[in-house]
Order: sequence, then structure tokens, then C-alpha cells
Amino acid sequence: MQFTAKDIALLLKGTVEGDPLAAVNQLAKIEEAGNGSLSFLANPKYEQYLYTTNASIVIINNSQELTSPVKCTLIRVENAYSAFTLLLEKYNTFKLHKEGIEQPSFIHQTAAVGTDAYIGAFAYISQGVTIGNNCKIYPNCYIADNVKLGDNVTLFAGVTVYFDCVLGNNVVVHSGAVIGSDGFGFAPNADGTYTKIAQIGNVIIEDDVEIGSNATIDRATMGSTVIRKGAKIDNLVQVAHNVEVGSNTVIAAQSGVSGSTKIGARVVIGGQVGFAGHLNIADGSQFGAQTGINSSVKEAGKQWGGSPYLPYKDYLRAHVNIRRLPDLEKRVRELEDIIKDIKK
Amino acid sequence: MQFTAKDIALLLKGTVEGDPLAAVNQLAKIEEAGNGSLSFLANPKYEQYLYTTNASIVIINNSQELTSPVKCTLIRVENAYSAFTLLLEKYNTFKLHKEGIEQPSFIHQTAAVGTDAYIGAFAYISQGVTIGNNCKIYPNCYIADNVKLGDNVTLFAGVTVYFDCVLGNNVVVHSGAVIGSDGFGFAPNADGTYTKIAQIGNVIIEDDVEIGSNATIDRATMGSTVIRKGAKIDNLVQVAHNVEVGSNTVIAAQSGVSGSTKIGARVVIGGQVGFAGHLNIADGSQFGAQTGINSSVKEAGKQWGGSPYLPYKDYLRAHVNIRRLPDLEKRVRELEDIIKDIKK
Amino acid sequence: MQFTAKDIALLLKGTVEGDPLAAVNQLAKIEEAGNGSLSFLANPKYEQYLYTTNASIVIINNSQELTSPVKCTLIRVENAYSAFTLLLEKYNTFKLHKEGIEQPSFIHQTAAVGTDAYIGAFAYISQGVTIGNNCKIYPNCYIADNVKLGDNVTLFAGVTVYFDCVLGNNVVVHSGAVIGSDGFGFAPNADGTYTKIAQIGNVIIEDDVEIGSNATIDRATMGSTVIRKGAKIDNLVQVAHNVEVGSNTVIAAQSGVSGSTKIGARVVIGGQVGFAGHLNIADGSQFGAQTGINSSVKEAGKQWGGSPYLPYKDYLRAHVNIRRLPDLEKRVRELEDIIKDIKK
Repeated sequence: MQFTAKDIALLLKGTVEGDPLAAVNQLAKIEEAGNGSLSFLANPKYEQYLYTTNASIVIINNSQELTSPVKCTLIRVENAYSAFTLLLEKYNTFKLHKEGIEQPSFIHQTAAVGTDAYIGAFAYISQGVTIGNNCKIYPNCYIADNVKLGDNVTLFAGVTVYFDCVLGNNVVVHSGAVIGSDGFGFAPNADGTYTKIAQIGNVIIEDDVEIGSNATIDRATMGSTVIRKGAKIDNLVQVAHNVEVGSNTVIAAQSGVSGSTKIGARVVIGGQVGFAGHLNIADGSQFGAQTGINSSVKEAGKQWGGSPYLPYKDYLRAHVNIRRLPDLEKRVRELEDIIKDIKK
Repeated sequence: MQFTAKDIALLLKGTVEGDPLAAVNQLAKIEEAGNGSLSFLANPKYEQYLYTTNASIVIINNSQELTSPVKCTLIRVENAYSAFTLLLEKYNTFKLHKEGIEQPSFIHQTAAVGTDAYIGAFAYISQGVTIGNNCKIYPNCYIADNVKLGDNVTLFAGVTVYFDCVLGNNVVVHSGAVIGSDGFGFAPNADGTYTKIAQIGNVIIEDDVEIGSNATIDRATMGSTVIRKGAKIDNLVQVAHNVEVGSNTVIAAQSGVSGSTKIGARVVIGGQVGFAGHLNIADGSQFGAQTGINSSVKEAGKQWGGSPYLPYKDYLRAHVNIRRLPDLEKRVRELEDIIKDIKK
Repeated sequence: MQFTAKDIALLLKGTVEGDPLAAVNQLAKIEEAGNGSLSFLANPKYEQYLYTTNASIVIINNSQELTSPVKCTLIRVENAYSAFTLLLEKYNTFKLHKEGIEQPSFIHQTAAVGTDAYIGAFAYISQGVTIGNNCKIYPNCYIADNVKLGDNVTLFAGVTVYFDCVLGNNVVVHSGAVIGSDGFGFAPNADGTYTKIAQIGNVIIEDDVEIGSNATIDRATMGSTVIRKGAKIDNLVQVAHNVEVGSNTVIAAQSGVSGSTKIGARVVIGGQVGFAGHLNIADGSQFGAQTGINSSVKEAGKQWGGSPYLPYKDYLRAHVNIRRLPDLEKRVRELEDIIKDIKK
């Protein structure tokens, strides 16, 4: 589909400078944009791209001054970045539009599916499941007994939700994620074997959470593993049984949280970070990539790094010192030689 | 469903103290339990919960003495923890009861499925597959040519088992796990490209093994990748081609084992641990989270940590020393200054 | 099926020494081979296996000299290793032969599927998809709107490819891998919540790439995440949005690459390695397992290790020094004592 500068300006409540009939059919970064592309310039320090871009239309801030002639059509708005983000979202909403119930799919007679649902082929909705309005369940998803989904939930292809789990409104789960598989609980026996401890709890995912592809969130032994409102969890993250992830906390890819650890709100966790079990992590903590956290973090809002973790600055300094160790050893040797001479 | 204290005491061979008709419909931790909940107290040091809990029924040890009045009904048994674990298991067996062959599913005419099977919709059972008795194959599973499953095997939704793999009795595999994908074997060519080395072996999983969600166990180049009896493998673990994981060995989430490494029996492996290839790891070894193992471990039953790994105590001490490095450097500087003075 | 030494020699253009009617029905390593097995000996230093193996047929180099009698039948070829690799490949091609379109599968009326396709049951091929010739789409795969696959592409069971992604010729993707899920992009708001940044780009996978099971390759925010020709990506690897992985680069299991990082050609990356975002990694770089890369690598062809990373030799030396730290501290203490004495 194609849109003109005039259409877009109308949508964004902006002003056209140039050809109102200039047309675009894709979105692109200003430095990579070709003919037929729509782009934006938000940061004045990249102003020069305005004069060299091949984009057909560029959205700019009302405050942007021009110091050379431009060949593209401009749309001026109050905040070019926000305006462009809005377009991205509208574009994706359009791309991801799906509706109806495809066949063959499996919807148990006792399941309740809200209005305006998309249920893809080969999706499986088990007994006692409740699905809110405007939900999209892509193909090959499996929703087990008695699961509850709120409104506007999207499960991309191949998501599995085990029995009794609860997902709030606006939750998005990417392909291959597994919600509610058994926590890793085994009691050791005298003969070296293990007896499985049945995991009868569930997972509760509150509103506005997004879960990345192939992430795994285990059900609680008893009670609930909880992902609080607005948390964002990246691909291949592991969340163990009885963990709580706080509101608006962000966990980057391949990090793992061991059983019963409670992570506070607004915590920022880099990639490949690991938390031991039964810890409490204070609100607003920040962890660099590959940090290993083996004890509770009591002070809120601090930065940490290393494994085992240290205050971030100490971690950086420790690594500088490690690099200088051969030099330090040499200095000690020289002192020893001098002392030997002195003693003679 | 609802159960009375009398029913439960009968099942557990216990004695009721209080109202034999007290009824429960869920299991909960004693400190979180509400009305209608069944709980337990095994550790006498938490005795005070007995007097404050809202649980309707609590299972306690025969030996437990009471020092205050209780409002809940008690069931006395020899071992409250074991009794409760048994109830958890029975509860889950009930919750996870599935039977019959749902449609549409794909069962090749040459496949042999044992008695009392559950085959979920959209499950695919290929040619030459043999499935024992009492197996549950949830929806969206794929079982490739000539795979053999023992009795009482459960594959949760979306498990993939590649051709020729063999799973023993009582094996449980959680959603999204992949058993038998190709080992990562490529021979470098002179021009910088790689030629794939066909991976014609298989994976053998012995009895009583549990595999976590989204774990990956690669087939052998030739011969077999083997997971020995009773091993437990957590979510997102990677087991490469020709690896052997010993009996009753436990591997926590996100750990990885490189090709041809042999891990002994009763080894305990924390999360995010990595093993290099072609190693031998002695029985009963224990590895802390995030350990990196780059050489064989010959002494059995020792604890290790760090990357590269050290004896666990040395690893802890090394980290204390690293934190003290700025101080050590300062001491050396002071010595240098003194020496300078002395030489003058 | 069974093959004779004569059949195999014909295929490999080799010469039979021994019984031309000796028959085999499996391939095995020379030291593990039983009766009815075909094996090979390429490295003269393992010559002794020739005299002890139970294999029925062994392929050897023309140049191999015999110093004792052998009981197996030999097939002499120019290069025994290459000849055996060829047999492995032929064996697997035979094992993995699949054809036809199984039912029920979902192929949208606007999708175009090339000749000689295998489409497994419960596979979903959405609108506007283009699939080349000789492709195999195993059961439970999901191929979203407008995806393009080249010729000879294999998607094993349960692969998901999100909309608009492009896969070249001879691409192999193992089970559970997710191509094109959303990049992890969220803009922070003043109130601590996050607004999702729509991810409208795609993933482009060039020819001859292999992707391991449960790996995740995120789509670009705008533009493309690109995996260049001949790259090999192992299980559970994470590739974030807008990353570029160079030609013939190899990434071992559980490694992760953060957003917008460009990795050069012929880079070799061990397991559990992590790259920060927005880096440039020079061609031919090599990274040991568990390396953490927090800055761009400008020199091509060097080896690195540790987290944060160091030149590989410095990393090894640093760890030796760390182990010796208690000793160094003791030396400093002795110097301090001596100085104290001297000053007296």
C-alpha cells in the first residue's frame, strides 16, 4: 500500500513542506532510506542526513532549522521521534492483523473465547480455558486446562501455556516460549536417586508483560511464580519456580533466575546474568551482562557487575588490577632483590 | 473436588485430631494457606505457624508437641513431609490425567502405540515408531521415524524427537525440548567454507530421566549421545553430540556440555555452567553456577567454581584477593617509597 | 538395507582387499564397530585398530601399510576420511528422505510451493509465502505471511519463521528455532513503564546457513538482521535485532549477540559467549567459551578470552596470576617485616 505526505500529515497532525502528493510505501532509517521511503530526523546533530537522504518524505521537529536545500518532502510535527514511533506501531498493527478461527483447530467445548479472536490452525485450547476479547492465538499454540487469558493477549506461533496459568491483559508471548512447565524440584534419596516433587502451583503474568521467544517460566511448587505488570523478558530467559519478577523490570536475553528469588520493580538486567535462589533484589538495581548474583541486594538503585558480583565501579577497577598483576609481581621481585642487596 | 480430613487420614494412614469432616480443596504452604486449604508442618522450628495458620487441615509428625491451642484440624503421620509429597503427587496425577486419541492427530500406519495412551491433537507419530504403555503424547509433539518410547513416558506439548532416538521408561520431557537434532559438526575447507558432517547417530535416554522445557540434546555423529538412568536436566540446557550424562546427575538451567564430554554419576551442576569438549568428569563432582570447566576432573566428589574452574575454596579466596588488590598495590608502593628513602 | 564391499567400492571408486561379498548394514567408529559394521581408518597412528576391530569392512587410505594380518575386508581409496564422510552423507540423505504433502496441513491459496516439496502434517504456510524447489517443511512448522524460502531448504519440526523473513538456498533450520521474532526494543517512560518500539524489519538468512535447535534470531527494528552465506549457528544461540553475522562465521551453543553488533567473516565463537550491542568484530576473530566482549575488536584474526575479554594469552596469564595472589600477598608481607626490622 502507498501513502502520500498529505495522508501522513493528517494522521500526525503535522504540516507538509514540499510535494503533498509525494508517496511512500515503506519505513526506513534516514541514512539507509531509498526512493519511496518515509523516514524521520529527531536529533539535530544528524541534520546533514536531511540534505543527502534519498527518502521521499522525512518527518522532522517543528523546531528543526534548515541550513541547505532539501530534495525530500518534509512533514513537521511537535516530536518527530514520537510521531515516527506511532507510524511504526500502526504499520505493525496492520501487518499483524489476523482474525477468525482457522480449521483445523481444537477448541474444547468447555472453553470460552471472547470476541474478535484469532485462533490459528493447529492451535489447541483445552477444557475450562477462558480467553478474553481481541486475543490472537497463532498456529501450533497449546493452551492447557483452565488457563485464563485477559483481553488483547497475543500468543505467537508455538507458545505453550501449562494448566492453571493466568495471563493478564495486553500480554504478548513470542514463539516457542513455555509458561508453566514444572519447576526443577527433586528430593534426593539415600541411594543417590531423586524423587520428583510434584509442582502444583502456577504462573501468573500480570498486564502489559512481554515474553521473548523460547523463554521458559516455570510454575511454582505451590503458590505462584509471578511476573508483575509491565515487566519485559527477552528471548531464552529462564525464570524458575516461585520466582517473582517485579513491575517494569527488564531482563535481557539468556539470563536466568533461580527458584524463589524475588526481583524488585524497575530492575534492569543485562544478558546472560544469573541469580542464585532465595534472594531478594532491591528495586531499581542494575546488572551488567554476565553478572553472577549470589546474595541478596539490599540497596536500591545501584549498579553491579562481575561474577560473583561487585559494585560496578569496583568490578571495573578489579579488572584493571588483574591486567596489571604481572607488573605488580615484577615490582615485588625488584623490591626483594634490593632487600637482598641491602641485607648483604 | 473436595476432600475431608477423614478421607485424607485414611489415604495417609494417619490419625485425625479435630473435625474429621473438615474439608479442603487445595494445597498450600502453611504460612500462605487460607480457609479450605490443606498444609503440613515438618520442621518443628516453624511450630508457631500451627497456631496462626488459616489452613483448614494441617498434616504434622506424630512426634510434634503442641504448646498452644490450634484452630485447624490436624492429621498426624509418621513423616509429614513425605505424606504431603505423596498428596502433591496424587493431586498432580489427577490434574494431569489425559486419555484417548484426539483428532486430528497423525499416527503412521506402521507405528505401534501401547495401551492406555493419550495422543493429543496435532501430535505426529511417524513411521516405525514404537510407543510403550501408559504414555502421554501431548498436542504438537513430533516423533520422527523409528523412535522408541518405553512405558509411562510423558512428552508435554511441542516436544520434538528426531529419528532413531530411544527413550526408556518413565521419561518426562517438557515442552519445546528437542531430542536428537544434529550435532554441530562441520569440517573446514581451504576456502573458509564448511562442509557439514552428517550426524547419523542417535540419542538414548534411559529410565527415569526428566528433561526441562526448551532443552536441546543433540544426536551423536556416530554411536549415541546417552543420558543415563535417573538424570535430571533443567530448562534450556544444551547437551552436544556424543556426550554422556551419568546416572542421577543433575544439571540446572542454561548449562551446556560440549561434544564428547563424559559426565559421571551423581554429579551436581549449577545453572549456566559450561563444559568444554572431550572431557571426563568424575562421579559426584559438584559445580557452582557459572563455572567454566576446561579440563577433565579426575578426583571424585569435589566442589568446584569459577571460570576457568578452581577448587571451590580457592575460587572464593581468589575473589577475596581480587577485591583486595588495590590495597596490595598500595602496600607495594609504600615499600618502594621506603626503599627509595633507605637507598638515599 | 545391506550393502556389500563390492557395492561400496564401486560407489567410492576404491579397491576391495578381502571378501567382495562382505556385507554391512551400519556405520560405526573403528574402535566401537561390531559385525556388520562399516568403518574407516584415516590416521595411521591408530593403525592397531585395523587388527583388532570387529567391523566387517574398513575403508583405508591407498597409502596405508599393513604390518599384521586383518580379518575384516578392506576398501582402499585415495582419502579414507573424505570417502567415509561421503557415505555418512549418503546414508543421511536416504534416512531423511521425505516427500509429498501430508494432511492435514495448511497452505494458504496465495502461497507458492516449488517442485518436489515435503510439507508435513500440521505445517502452516501463510499467505504470500514463496517456497523454492526441493524444500522440506516438517510437521508443526509455522511460516508467516510473505516469507520467502530458496531452494533445498529444510525446516525441521516446529520451526517458526515470522512474516517477511527471507531464507536463501540450502538453509537448514533445526527444531524449535525462531526466526524473526520481535527485537527487544522498549522506550522508557517517565513513570517507569515502557512503550514497545514496533519491530518492522525482518531477518535475511543467506545461502548455506545452518541454524541449531531452539536458537532465536530477532527481526530488525527497521532494515534487516542478516546471517551471511555459510554461517553456522548452534543450538540456543540468541541473535538480537539488527545484528549482522558474517560469512562462514561459526557460533557455538548458548552464545548471544546483542543488538546492532556486526560480526565479521570467518569468526569462530565458542559456547556461552556474549557480545554487547553496537560493536564491530573484525574478520577471523576467535573467542574462547564464556568470553564477554564489551568493546569492538579491530584487529583481525586474533584470539580472545575472559570477561571482560583480553588477548587469549593475557587471559590465561591473568588466571595464573590470580591463583598465585595468596603467594604474592605473603611475599609483600615478608618484605614489610624485613623493612620494619631494617628501620629499627
